[in-house]
Amino acid sequence: MKIIVIGATGTIGKAVAQALAARHEVVSVARSSGEIRADLTDKASVLRLFEQVGPVDAVVSAAGQARFKPLEALSDEDFQFSLSNKLMGQVNLVRLSLPFLRDNGSITLTSGVLAEEPTPGSPAISLVNSGLNGFVRAAALEMPRGIRVNIVSPPWVSETLAAMGRDADSGMLAAEVSKAYVQSVEGHQTGRVLDARAFRA
Amino acid sequence: MKIIVIGATGTIGKAVAQALAARHEVVSVARSSGEIRADLTDKASVLRLFEQVGPVDAVVSAAGQARFKPLEALSDEDFQFSLSNKLMGQVNLVRLSLPFLRDNGSITLTSGVLAEEPTPGSPAISLVNSGLNGFVRAAALEMPRGIRVNIVSPPWVSETLAAMGRDADSGMLAAEVSKAYVQSVEGHQTGRVLDARAFRA
Repeated sequence: MKIIVIGATGTIGKAVAQALAARHEVVSVARSSGEIRADLTDKASVLRLFEQVGPVDAVVSAAGQARFKPLEALSDEDFQFSLSNKLMGQVNLVRLSLPFLRDNGSITLTSGVLAEEPTPGSPAISLVNSGLNGFVRAAALEMPRGIRVNIVSPPWVSETLAAMGRDADSGMLAAEVSKAYVQSVEGHQTGRVLDARAFRA
Repeated sequence: MKIIVIGATGTIGKAVAQALAARHEVVSVARSSGEIRADLTDKASVLRLFEQVGPVDAVVSAAGQARFKPLEALSDEDFQFSLSNKLMGQVNLVRLSLPFLRDNGSITLTSGVLAEEPTPGSPAISLVNSGLNGFVRAAALEMPRGIRVNIVSPPWVSETLAAMGRDADSGMLAAEVSKAYVQSVEGHQTGRVLDARAFRA
């Protein structure tokens, strides 16, 4: 399969690109480095990416940001940023990629466990992650030509925790998390929220 | 208790206001009619409402719109409208109401079963409803002074189905749905998504 991985320089994206590259042709895309550049929040840039690379069999997004702040500290701009970046960036990726996906292709997005398991500071992220899960469950019902769409919900990743000076053992290695993405790309399910913790070694 | 009900002229809002009025002082608010007017999508208008009416013991929202359209028909404007109306309108209601809520007060928002049980045409609504559920679960962890926040997830309402010429018996009467809102206001739970179907007579 020919597969676009967006956010391929991030901790999870790098592991996903590596895991998929064992059996597939992977096109690694990131915002500011990597083979090919595209900005998830810029529809024109995403469209250029597909015109340049397509047609493809799968699109994987491990990209998108949302603000982690207590509710009283979240500004209008924090909500706006979170909605337009991780949330609508990935929603628009689904909308824009469809014409460039081959029959029976797939799209895999990224949310996160804060959707269902919030912590203080997660109101904007929990909103975005839950919204993405709901969007994917619904969008799957309307995909044309056998195209599937799933979303991976990763927990805290060990490499990120280590970089933050926190307990890496309380997280999951990016290489383990990447198995959920491989399952979404190579499997048959659609409309599913894949809890990456179910794929722990 | 003194309770603000927003969207009090809608099918659900009217039933909620009526159910609460049996035991409480209800201030009915709607966008274009009713005792007091306020527009959920206009922060200044919501702030004026609270300055005029507050302090209160509870705020209930049965307001907010999102677009029901197949994914391929949903425009950028449809997503923007849905996000800024039902989603951020209610998120901002939580943010704005806090200073006007008495200790141990409560906020009750509205999502809907399309969050978890989508149908073709529901991508934008499922996104909004799921996003609201995730926001409420997270925001509840940060409420000050014993304030609670819950969200009611109603199914299709019989009165709405009848008005659309569809089978009213497949829905739930607004008066039955209102019981979930009363439970949120008078009960002790917080951070909960209350499936209104659990309150069917």
